[in-house]
Amino acid sequence: MATRLQGIFTPNLVPYDAHGDINEGELRRYVNWLIEKGVHGLYPNGSTGEFTRFTVEERKRIVSIIADETRGRVPILAGAAEANVKETLKACEFYAELGVRAVAIVAPFYYKLSPASVYAYFKEIGDNTPVDVTLYNIPMFASPIDVPTVKRLSEECERIVAIKDSSGDLPHMIRMIQAVRPNRPDFSFLTGWDAALMPMILLGCDGGTNASSGVVPEITRKLYDCTVGGQLDEARQIQYDLVNLFDTMLYSAEFPDGFRAAVELRGFQMGRGRQPLSSEQTTDLDALTKTLQCHLATHGYTDEPVGGCPIPSADERDLTEVSEIVARVVSELHQRGMM
Amino acid sequence: MATRLQGIFTPNLVPYDAHGDINEGELRRYVNWLIEKGVHGLYPNGSTGEFTRFTVEERKRIVSIIADETRGRVPILAGAAEANVKETLKACEFYAELGVRAVAIVAPFYYKLSPASVYAYFKEIGDNTPVDVTLYNIPMFASPIDVPTVKRLSEECERIVAIKDSSGDLPHMIRMIQAVRPNRPDFSFLTGWDAALMPMILLGCDGGTNASSGVVPEITRKLYDCTVGGQLDEARQIQYDLVNLFDTMLYSAEFPDGFRAAVELRGFQMGRGRQPLSSEQTTDLDALTKTLQCHLATHGYTDEPVGGCPIPSADERDLTEVSEIVARVVSELHQRGMM
Amino acid sequence: MATRLQGIFTPNLVPYDAHGDINEGELRRYVNWLIEKGVHGLYPNGSTGEFTRFTVEERKRIVSIIADETRGRVPILAGAAEANVKETLKACEFYAELGVRAVAIVAPFYYKLSPASVYAYFKEIGDNTPVDVTLYNIPMFASPIDVPTVKRLSEECERIVAIKDSSGDLPHMIRMIQAVRPNRPDFSFLTGWDAALMPMILLGCDGGTNASSGVVPEITRKLYDCTVGGQLDEARQIQYDLVNLFDTMLYSAEFPDGFRAAVELRGFQMGRGRQPLSSEQTTDLDALTKTLQCHLATHGYTDEPVGGCPIPSADERDLTEVSEIVARVVSELHQRGMM
Amino acid sequence: MATRLQGIFTPNLVPYDAHGDINEGELRRYVNWLIEKGVHGLYPNGSTGEFTRFTVEERKRIVSIIADETRGRVPILAGAAEANVKETLKACEFYAELGVRAVAIVAPFYYKLSPASVYAYFKEIGDNTPVDVTLYNIPMFASPIDVPTVKRLSEECERIVAIKDSSGDLPHMIRMIQAVRPNRPDFSFLTGWDAALMPMILLGCDGGTNASSGVVPEITRKLYDCTVGGQLDEARQIQYDLVNLFDTMLYSAEFPDGFRAAVELRGFQMGRGRQPLSSEQTTDLDALTKTLQCHLATHGYTDEPVGGCPIPSADERDLTEVSEIVARVVSELHQRGMM
Repeated sequence: MATRLQGIFTPNLVPYDAHGDINEGELRRYVNWLIEKGVHGLYPNGSTGEFTRFTVEERKRIVSIIADETRGRVPILAGAAEANVKETLKACEFYAELGVRAVAIVAPFYYKLSPASVYAYFKEIGDNTPVDVTLYNIPMFASPIDVPTVKRLSEECERIVAIKDSSGDLPHMIRMIQAVRPNRPDFSFLTGWDAALMPMILLGCDGGTNASSGVVPEITRKLYDCTVGGQLDEARQIQYDLVNLFDTMLYSAEFPDGFRAAVELRGFQMGRGRQPLSSEQTTDLDALTKTLQCHLATHGYTDEPVGGCPIPSADERDLTEVSEIVARVVSELHQRGMM
Repeated sequence: MATRLQGIFTPNLVPYDAHGDINEGELRRYVNWLIEKGVHGLYPNGSTGEFTRFTVEERKRIVSIIADETRGRVPILAGAAEANVKETLKACEFYAELGVRAVAIVAPFYYKLSPASVYAYFKEIGDNTPVDVTLYNIPMFASPIDVPTVKRLSEECERIVAIKDSSGDLPHMIRMIQAVRPNRPDFSFLTGWDAALMPMILLGCDGGTNASSGVVPEITRKLYDCTVGGQLDEARQIQYDLVNLFDTMLYSAEFPDGFRAAVELRGFQMGRGRQPLSSEQTTDLDALTKTLQCHLATHGYTDEPVGGCPIPSADERDLTEVSEIVARVVSELHQRGMM
Repeated sequence: MATRLQGIFTPNLVPYDAHGDINEGELRRYVNWLIEKGVHGLYPNGSTGEFTRFTVEERKRIVSIIADETRGRVPILAGAAEANVKETLKACEFYAELGVRAVAIVAPFYYKLSPASVYAYFKEIGDNTPVDVTLYNIPMFASPIDVPTVKRLSEECERIVAIKDSSGDLPHMIRMIQAVRPNRPDFSFLTGWDAALMPMILLGCDGGTNASSGVVPEITRKLYDCTVGGQLDEARQIQYDLVNLFDTMLYSAEFPDGFRAAVELRGFQMGRGRQPLSSEQTTDLDALTKTLQCHLATHGYTDEPVGGCPIPSADERDLTEVSEIVARVVSELHQRGMM
Repeated sequence: MATRLQGIFTPNLVPYDAHGDINEGELRRYVNWLIEKGVHGLYPNGSTGEFTRFTVEERKRIVSIIADETRGRVPILAGAAEANVKETLKACEFYAELGVRAVAIVAPFYYKLSPASVYAYFKEIGDNTPVDVTLYNIPMFASPIDVPTVKRLSEECERIVAIKDSSGDLPHMIRMIQAVRPNRPDFSFLTGWDAALMPMILLGCDGGTNASSGVVPEITRKLYDCTVGGQLDEARQIQYDLVNLFDTMLYSAEFPDGFRAAVELRGFQMGRGRQPLSSEQTTDLDALTKTLQCHLATHGYTDEPVGGCPIPSADERDLTEVSEIVARVVSELHQRGMM
């Protein structure tokens, strides 16, 4: 039996070149850097990886490049959702041949499907896939996968081996673990919500697919290690800090542009995104970059921006200011049902 | 200047063959039938046409077949949304060469984008498209296109000539018309919400892209004619009846399976859909088919099902019963924010 | 049998004196003015009337004053919802003795109740009320009353004679009318959504309880008369204009402060509201007052503000501007589920 | 300076007598039992205590009885929200004279207010209250209190000393703690979401106002003690079990009827609730009572029901079954935005 999926899987961003195409050289360089910094695995073609903005061929190419560059050093979880079950199964076969550890498949989106349809969709995939499957639940973007559906699929389909849940809802995670683990001790639970990584692990999660690990892999990894190792006071401090950084990247720009801007600060040329920006948005993104640079500079990951950063007061007031601004946005997004 | 888009455009369903592929012969037969029954135009690759469940090549083939079969008898509005702006513009060019009257482009989906991003997306398309563009607003499935965005795009992009709005929100339609028409008298407003077709037209809409017109083109067309012609009492009766039928098709099965089942009753082999069904769902769909058959039989469009229909009472109680059941579902969907 | 509720019922605002208490003199003057301007009925203790911000005793006093001043000239629909069924029935008795035509009772709020509970609540009231009852459905604020519940209550409780629906959802109104009217031709349907008054009446509504009729009773009344009388072109123009005014009052301030500011411009001292305002909000309200004054001045209902109004261009661009601003807010509120 | 609010505060249910009035004797008996079982404080007039279903006088009487019976053994947090600021301040004065430790005030409800209005409301209360105030954030029922508002109020109003947050959103709690604690180390953070009590405390919360502590005070208290004491494995097990019980009570009946049914099983006569039930609901409640009895019997808190309970399998499958059913309901409620 294969090992249970565990640890931090980085949902890869994709660098673009000047023509808006995949920048293969930079992608390879980025993959090596992530592995050196200690992430446990890679996760291309996720939401962070903008999978919907690529063609079928591009999605295949992204995983091919990453698999080639990784050479088995870390396991790969490849996003494999395509237009329908048949196309998705074709993608599963392709990725299986590349030697990925598993695929991750988001529930059908655009149409909001009922639990019965979500079950039927994954059942057909689970019965025919040549590679292990991770369910991907992200109710803010796709049809939700509810607890009874996860339970039923885990009982009926051996090749369905994990769920990645990006709801950030802790009691929901507890409900899933209770429903599934007694019968499937090998089933893995991963959280996609960085702002709750520590408590998720403390309550039983096996790890996470966390966008922040693509930006500050050192921090996300350390948070995981401290939490698993029982150093809770240190973990709590890191978690608090990560909430600030995560919120700033998530809510100050259209997703995943904040994360792209931060990775750029770590030394990678990410290029202009495929979703066009208005001129106001471009200006906002520049401002965000400065804020992020100051944040990353406090960790020594970058220099401070020209002109310097706001002087940090004893009580970390500057972080509080940022936190306050993003919190207002968070609150709005919550009310709009966009989180 | 091209004529303003007007009248009833049918959002085409796509028949599948035994292998789940496009059934070209049946699609051609269906197109002819729709034109003979009097619809003003055809609208392939919409939500009703399950555009997300086809590959890029299949989407192109669907429009090619329809354009070939139509031979200019009615205008075609072709859904052209692809993975990103570049791919979408490629599709626009392809459809332009086929001679479609315009394309329809849904706002970006999966990610929920802000109005600024939705503007930037359509602005880039509007500035580079070789064919007229209809904006497609369907907030239950995709990023919403708000009134100021429609206004700004209508002022800046001559090739953006219409909006199809499926929100069903009447005051929203009034706000759009007031914001746009003074500067763009040629701009067309189409509603995608069959249950409000009559009042939408009375308040200023130019027509609709209505899924029911693919099932009962005679009725949808008559509703349009009566409303435009000022026969309001007759129109109201037809609108009431259409709400019943529309609700039944919309809420008693996963969209658009209810519409597919009804078209089957009109004599077309639609085949099994691409989204798998659980066995319970298959049973439910059979029951729905009987209900629909009874409804269509009252209009003489089909025979009654074997075993007959519930005896219609003087006060149309049977329709009320159906209405009651679907109303409960409607109410639930509304609360879930799924409508 | 009593006459069916019909026409425009004004949801009364309540003027406050310098101490924040009910300003009886001004309330009496306001009631007379409304009746003279032609509204068909009065509706105290609705959402517009801020019923939740008064004590039980104050709510009773408001209706007592209005009943006394009205002296039977127009029917009164009195909001009677209290903390629980027992208290609500006590209020019904009190209002019955004052001679009101009917009471209006909102579904339970704070807790979001299921349809079964909403049914049980109204069933107990309907079985014990000494006065006719209007159901009040306002799903943005209170537990929704769904179509099957309205149907069942209309069949089981003779004293439930009407529904006031503030959802603004036209197909929902059609569903209710179809479900109820065959068995209860005396049942009345009133809409609380001014922005859809004309189409609601055209589709079968008996009238409305419209907040705008407390501000511009001449206009709301004329819209009703033109629509009922079949002057659709004139009605459409009035409806368009009313959407502008309604949106401005509704979305530019906390409800119902925009309506209160407008009534002040018609010559009534409304006083400071009971919900405190921040200093920014007070400034915003002053700006709103100017906008409203310009709108009302175009109808000759007030003078222009000192400093004048923006020059109206041929295409009514100024209204469009206002419309644009409020539309953005509307769009946001919609997304937040606050409408 | 008064001590920081800490530990488990029980949101008191109110027993009714045969006439639907407050059953004083049973309420006193219940209060004593709770104190003996070890809860740290009492919290009357909360959502669990159905505060909206009582008259002003009844709300005062409930706190009076509890204060009289408690005789200072544990601190009391009294719900004090009334129709408007003036009435709420009167209630604050009344409860202050009874010697309560603090009042808890929910944000304005029915109308959905903006952050500016929520701020202005609490600012006026915070500036004039004679007793410490706990903010009460419960966005599923009332206007949300966002992070910047909590921060600003904590800085401007010394008498605002705590927030009770029932959103169950962990990152939100982290954001609040980060925004407030640097300047107000005496400010207390309480969670109202039992299903996340353990992680909330691990991340920095001071305690909770947890409805389950009114049913199984032994368990809630033990969960708190184990978590604070670092016995995480034991705590995790208790938290898992509590999620099951909490879900069953919360989602299998209209809130708070499931909790009332469970307290009845602990030996208190709770009486029939004030919100009427349909006959189907009454039947459902009987079934729920059996399920709860079996759950409580596994802890030895009650006997098994006549006829016995499902045989517990080695892997606690029975709990899983219950969990599965409620999870489906949870999922639905989540989608409906009712949680």
